[in-house]
Amino acid sequence: MAKPKLYIPGPIQVSEKTFKAFSQPMMGHRSKDFQELYARVQPGLQKLFYTRQPVFMATGSAWSVMEASIRNLVSKKVLTCMNGAFSDKWYGVATANGKQAEKLQVEWGKPILAEQIDAKLATGEFDAVTLIHSETSTGTLSPLEEIAKLKKKYPDVMFIVDVVSSLSTRKIAFDELGVDVMLAGLQKAMALPPGAAVFAVSEAAFKKAEQLKDRGYYGDFIEYRANHEKNMTPTTPSISHFYALESKLEDILTEGLDARFARHLENVMIVREWAKKNGFELFPELQYATVGLTCIKNNRNIDVAALTSWLKKNKNVQIDGGYGKIKGQTFRISSMGDETTANIYELMGYMDEALKAIGA
Amino acid sequence: MAKPKLYIPGPIQVSEKTFKAFSQPMMGHRSKDFQELYARVQPGLQKLFYTRQPVFMATGSAWSVMEASIRNLVSKKVLTCMNGAFSDKWYGVATANGKQAEKLQVEWGKPILAEQIDAKLATGEFDAVTLIHSETSTGTLSPLEEIAKLKKKYPDVMFIVDVVSSLSTRKIAFDELGVDVMLAGLQKAMALPPGAAVFAVSEAAFKKAEQLKDRGYYGDFIEYRANHEKNMTPTTPSISHFYALESKLEDILTEGLDARFARHLENVMIVREWAKKNGFELFPELQYATVGLTCIKNNRNIDVAALTSWLKKNKNVQIDGGYGKIKGQTFRISSMGDETTANIYELMGYMDEALKAIGA
Repeated sequence: MAKPKLYIPGPIQVSEKTFKAFSQPMMGHRSKDFQELYARVQPGLQKLFYTRQPVFMATGSAWSVMEASIRNLVSKKVLTCMNGAFSDKWYGVATANGKQAEKLQVEWGKPILAEQIDAKLATGEFDAVTLIHSETSTGTLSPLEEIAKLKKKYPDVMFIVDVVSSLSTRKIAFDELGVDVMLAGLQKAMALPPGAAVFAVSEAAFKKAEQLKDRGYYGDFIEYRANHEKNMTPTTPSISHFYALESKLEDILTEGLDARFARHLENVMIVREWAKKNGFELFPELQYATVGLTCIKNNRNIDVAALTSWLKKNKNVQIDGGYGKIKGQTFRISSMGDETTANIYELMGYMDEALKAIGA
Repeated sequence: MAKPKLYIPGPIQVSEKTFKAFSQPMMGHRSKDFQELYARVQPGLQKLFYTRQPVFMATGSAWSVMEASIRNLVSKKVLTCMNGAFSDKWYGVATANGKQAEKLQVEWGKPILAEQIDAKLATGEFDAVTLIHSETSTGTLSPLEEIAKLKKKYPDVMFIVDVVSSLSTRKIAFDELGVDVMLAGLQKAMALPPGAAVFAVSEAAFKKAEQLKDRGYYGDFIEYRANHEKNMTPTTPSISHFYALESKLEDILTEGLDARFARHLENVMIVREWAKKNGFELFPELQYATVGLTCIKNNRNIDVAALTSWLKKNKNVQIDGGYGKIKGQTFRISSMGDETTANIYELMGYMDEALKAIGA
């Protein structure tokens, strides 16, 4: 039987077109051919990030860039905003890199608010803050626009923002926001196979990095910038991910960013409507619910494992039964990437059948 | 026109079978399906490394693992053995990670000898040494068996060895050698698309790592070991590279390791014979020439750029015109991966034509 279609929030379903691009023949990564490929993806990435800064692609998971951001930018102390399984890890990553760090921990499913960050930064203890814009484990979106306004008040603080499940689902304008690092793994909202991440770095962050020693080599922002001038990467890149990214940016720009954002919103509205109709609540408050996926609260106390199993077995589709400590208490449905309203309606039909079948 | 067939020493030509495996549908990387895939590649990797230790796959270029080795294992001072473009970089990587380092620099094209390392380690200043077994930029193989014998004399020194263009071209027995880290990017001798590296870590190295702080997170050996127990990786892996690795290990074990080694030796002998016949010398001394590729000295002072261009234009094959400071003074031909003697004879025929065509 074919592998189940993925509606889990990452890795998500990868299209045939992307896989075809992903499997193009190799070339030397110091060749003119590669330089041309590198140059071709740049304008699309800059449009997606709404930036004039270079946008880099790192070979590695997003954590390689998260760790790099810490190493490049933290000299005093970093405030790690934590509100879910992924953001909760960032504190440990900071301390594993020998950095002073402090947790801003809020309950899972709650957003990080600007006033909470403001109160911490007001102490003057911090020179960096980390935030996951869309915390995928809980489907929660923190109000980045308001948080980013703090940059004006604290210009010396480096704002490091992960947008893995929000990039390309809504407008996130790097230059306008004025944050310092924006990064995303490509296997969630970008619907690429996992293994690479994209990121942009502000001028202020480059300046800060230049002053720091012990930035390491693999994730050194200054190395990235120097190689970017030659349309190259510091180390051997995953050429396949560059090819796939080229193809995906083509998809995105052909559809148009605004149309893509609208489609993502429509998709998620269908899932939210299904949840409401079936007596389920969202795990985060509606105003903080992200648009690439839906984290549904299991307030009806159904057998979530039975639900996901039934769907896999009978419909060959896979949704997620909740992550980490909220496994079973929540379930998650991705509507990111290439999903259409038709796909999502179809999935909701399956979900209706599944609820009946498991007697919920 | 189809992309040229690659005879450059990495990235090398990737087979259709590998690409097919590489493009299999995604799955959750915390799922049972992924755990099964992870477990399936393990025995093959252990055979290839001749080890009972776990063999990990890192998502990233080999430099991510090289840097990780430095961060996990160096507390005092590292001796970086340098004899070519790639090994020469290791000193800078060590210092970029805030480590004390000293260069053991020999001329490009010369091997690193055990006695040279011995003399340095005898000072007692070092707790680690880095070596590139097969320096791809010069086609030079350092005598690893003799060097590894020093481990008995200096048991507290961590021996970190890169085998990117030698792994699977000859027997390199991790456990028997007794070295501490053996690592390789997968885009050279393993003929996978770039983007991942494999590595093994000795018990002594795990013990050393446990004592070191500031190991970071992304390349933390202890994290790798803990996740390995669950057949998982610390962070989202390139699932595609796991699929491709599974397929490639299947190829390797079907052929048989000894048969593979013999094929690589045959291939390289054909290239060496061609060089001799045409009045070219090898760049390294014959006894230190590696077996996955050949670095030919341009002692006839031919127009190397014309040679490589002619081959690309007329035969749609790509050889390398020399790396870095020996560009034009050397040229390199890869016979690693899936190349057969028939392929290599064919290429040598093209090379004969090319020499004539450029009037050399």
